[in-house]
Amino acid sequence: MPHIALNSDEPGIRGLLRFRPETGEPLSELAEVLLRGPGTLTRGERELIAAYVSALNDCQYCSSSHSACAAAQLPGGMAVVEQVRADVGSALISAKLKALLAIASAVQQSGLKVCAEDVSEARAAGATDLEIHDTVLIAAAFCMFNRYVDGLATIAPQDPARYAAGAQRLVMDGYMLRAEPGREG
Amino acid sequence: MPHIALNSDEPGIRGLLRFRPETGEPLSELAEVLLRGPGTLTRGERELIAAYVSALNDCQYCSSSHSACAAAQLPGGMAVVEQVRADVGSALISAKLKALLAIASAVQQSGLKVCAEDVSEARAAGATDLEIHDTVLIAAAFCMFNRYVDGLATIAPQDPARYAAGAQRLVMDGYMLRAEPGREG
Repeated sequence: MPHIALNSDEPGIRGLLRFRPETGEPLSELAEVLLRGPGTLTRGERELIAAYVSALNDCQYCSSSHSACAAAQLPGGMAVVEQVRADVGSALISAKLKALLAIASAVQQSGLKVCAEDVSEARAAGATDLEIHDTVLIAAAFCMFNRYVDGLATIAPQDPARYAAGAQRLVMDGYMLRAEPGREG
Repeated sequence: MPHIALNSDEPGIRGLLRFRPETGEPLSELAEVLLRGPGTLTRGERELIAAYVSALNDCQYCSSSHSACAAAQLPGGMAVVEQVRADVGSALISAKLKALLAIASAVQQSGLKVCAEDVSEARAAGATDLEIHDTVLIAAAFCMFNRYVDGLATIAPQDPARYAAGAQRLVMDGYMLRAEPGREG
């Protein structure tokens, strides 16, 4: 049960965005720009970074939700998401994405853990400054979203089919808050 | 030196917001709503939560900046900010604010560390659900801002006078991004 009384029974962050739209709007816009806005990392790659950090933070809701979004948008589907969760080194992803995930993993611990060598390796593997920037900010943002969702003890559904269905909606419609309550229900 | 080439020499998060305005805008709006928008926690109390979490994350830029903002807006000034950093239990702040700082401290570690007793204590000390929500989100947001600022190795000025001057501008003008480059310089 959530720590505070929400005004809907929507799970995870959805109930929180609805409860406090004044903060829900910039939070939704941030997710939309980072995960779906114009950029040279694919949407699947960006969702994979989000899913990876959320798993490191043990956030069941965000990890399930963004794993489903990554699986829906990566050529390798859920198999690749699971490879990354088990062992980034041997996963069937590009060297550039491996280097960016190493940066994300450092950020998950602390910004101070990102060292010049992590950044040099990403650059050597072809990452641009903007891709490095966005990787750091995606990882940092999920350190926020994960704490927000779990710090208020929101509900995380168990059924993977719910996350897969949610991912289909997110892939289609994106992260921006809808004005009409119930539209996403 | 920052890990990536920024397009200004502004320190800390200011250079990052300028570098990537697409993300800078929602990030600025989030800070404005959380730290200065309508609410029953004073602006000084909210800045104190931000400063406290930033210190726990060892983020020199954010800790210095938000300590200065808290000091400028709390009746007790910098003395209270320093008391809180040294020992929340004996600081000259309300029981409600102490209970909210305990929640913020749990969030800084992990959202999963916030327990029902933390929330009950805050409520017993007079905190509303919205105040508890905003405390969790301020703490979570600074776990993002701190990682963003340090994960890209932005510059943190040493001189406390620069942070005091910055705080005067923030207290007056707020956190929204200015369109005109150089206006904040």
